[in-house]
Amino acid sequence: MDREGALQTVKEHLTDHRYQHTIGVMETAIVLAERYGADVKKAELAAIFHDYAKFRPKDEMKQIILDQGMEQQLLVFNSELWHAPVGAFLVEKEVGLNDEEILDAIRYHTSGRVGMSLLDKVIYLADYIEPGRRFPGVDEVREFAKANLNQALVQAIKNSIQFLMKKNQPVYPDTIYTYNDLVKLRED
Amino acid sequence: MDREGALQTVKEHLTDHRYQHTIGVMETAIVLAERYGADVKKAELAAIFHDYAKFRPKDEMKQIILDQGMEQQLLVFNSELWHAPVGAFLVEKEVGLNDEEILDAIRYHTSGRVGMSLLDKVIYLADYIEPGRRFPGVDEVREFAKANLNQALVQAIKNSIQFLMKKNQPVYPDTIYTYNDLVKLRED
Repeated sequence: MDREGALQTVKEHLTDHRYQHTIGVMETAIVLAERYGADVKKAELAAIFHDYAKFRPKDEMKQIILDQGMEQQLLVFNSELWHAPVGAFLVEKEVGLNDEEILDAIRYHTSGRVGMSLLDKVIYLADYIEPGRRFPGVDEVREFAKANLNQALVQAIKNSIQFLMKKNQPVYPDTIYTYNDLVKLRED
Repeated sequence: MDREGALQTVKEHLTDHRYQHTIGVMETAIVLAERYGADVKKAELAAIFHDYAKFRPKDEMKQIILDQGMEQQLLVFNSELWHAPVGAFLVEKEVGLNDEEILDAIRYHTSGRVGMSLLDKVIYLADYIEPGRRFPGVDEVREFAKANLNQALVQAIKNSIQFLMKKNQPVYPDTIYTYNDLVKLRED
């Protein structure tokens, strides 16, 4: 699937604002993929489709999580987490994209996972630092991303956990498992 | 077991510094137990014995965790976590204290647990705010503890998680589960 076809497909499912975000993620993911040696074409497609399910009705997403035997624990946590695994499912079913690496990068772009692949990391980070993002700490992560993918990723995850804790919101366990997994890999 | 006997027993297992900390935890736990309606006598004993195993050799603690079928995951996390469950085991075995509520409060005073009892909360918090403690954020938790046990506890746990994240240290999953459990219980 080429870039133009993919963008045209996803555009119908997103608001203008979210489409602009998607373009930012795509451009950032390409830069990161080139920098860290990930498959640039896969990074481009995963980025384009990462928010494919973002605006699906909650009821539909919930039903898919139940029907497809996805992690049921998702349902007791913030519904913001749902569009990632549901998106991976729908991108395969509706768009016909069946590359497992791309689908995983979509599936784990919000929660992370233990043993994130290089492509997972590129998409997670691109989603966090694309030029449209404005939140405390994002510039620091952008700086880290220039030289150290894992350091940038750890900082992004720490910021996300702190953001949730400030609001007394629950932290999805996979996010802590991902953090724990990444800090074990790092030397500094 | 009376206070004097208990203190005499525990004193032999602690450094002077840690014994002074224990006295502080005991006095604080009594105040909190009275304030929030926990069993004052149990709070006193749990506080006195909470660090009973603090200075056991790591090898001995590790062996007890293995032999007693305790959560094996403890072994891959910071050994600072070990003295709590090992302490509960040794206080029962060596001191003969067999009140399950007291033993649980000792067992979970470092990690917390989902569904913390009132006594668990009193001991966790007393350990965090006793007068000898000096670290960023402790005064805020002391203030919260005057009026809202859960709010104080959540803040203490958040501070602990942030402290670990600042140092890129792993966060023990039970600690996040405890946080998630407590923020669900809170209204504010």
